[in-house]
Amino acid sequence: MLIVRDAFLGVRRFEDFQNDLGTTRHRLAARLKKLVGDGILARVRYQDRPQRYEYRLTEKGIDLYPVVVSLLRWGDRWMAGKEGPPIELVHRECGAHVMPTLTCPGCNEEVNARTMTARLGPALRNQSERPRYARLKHRKEHSLS
Amino acid sequence: MLIVRDAFLGVRRFEDFQNDLGTTRHRLAARLKKLVGDGILARVRYQDRPQRYEYRLTEKGIDLYPVVVSLLRWGDRWMAGKEGPPIELVHRECGAHVMPTLTCPGCNEEVNARTMTARLGPALRNQSERPRYARLKHRKEHSLS
Repeated sequence: MLIVRDAFLGVRRFEDFQNDLGTTRHRLAARLKKLVGDGILARVRYQDRPQRYEYRLTEKGIDLYPVVVSLLRWGDRWMAGKEGPPIELVHRECGAHVMPTLTCPGCNEEVNARTMTARLGPALRNQSERPRYARLKHRKEHSLS
Repeated sequence: MLIVRDAFLGVRRFEDFQNDLGTTRHRLAARLKKLVGDGILARVRYQDRPQRYEYRLTEKGIDLYPVVVSLLRWGDRWMAGKEGPPIELVHRECGAHVMPTLTCPGCNEEVNARTMTARLGPALRNQSERPRYARLKHRKEHSLS
């Protein structure tokens, strides 16, 4: 997820990922390969002689943006030091300098774990015995409160 | 993150996490310990003789809800099979059966990677040399498009 976060910030080259994340070449190569295999990053040749490659987010990867922003928001709230958040976001369409929030499309209110409940979807209604679904099955809906 | 997801669905006990995630006891114990150390889960005694413990989300953990929901939404979009999503969410306050979206609090529009830009926050404006911030520094704002 740190690689994906960096990709959203414009990092594309192996050496830049490595400098930024401080990981070993071996480990970074394995993770990039996994992300390419999962269709989240694409390995793209950007130079012919010598051949050089960079890593770009695919549509599937770009669609992880809400996950990355939600993590950023959480980090700002629970980890940021006195100096404030490292990165600020701006909504280009309205110019607001904001941190986006998770919102119910039905009523436009911000949601959280206490105002939402989960229930089994169609794929699972008749089958799942997994512990993570047990409460949903017996209570129909589950919430934290 | 799978442990946290399970915790949001009501899983609390070691054996239930293990059955659900299919991981080894050793590995699960290490991950739970890390989550407790990070303040995301709390280890709580729920029985005295014999002593038994369960794992509950802390406030810091509960605040990861938008991350988990964003991942669920992404999984539904890119991974779900023909039968549809495994879990459905309901907003208790308005009753809408919806998947929450990431929204700009300024204008209530849904945002994505292409409509948002990032810029360096106050903590970094004068200092960072990290590759992930290089583009922000030179361009002031960075976006994918």
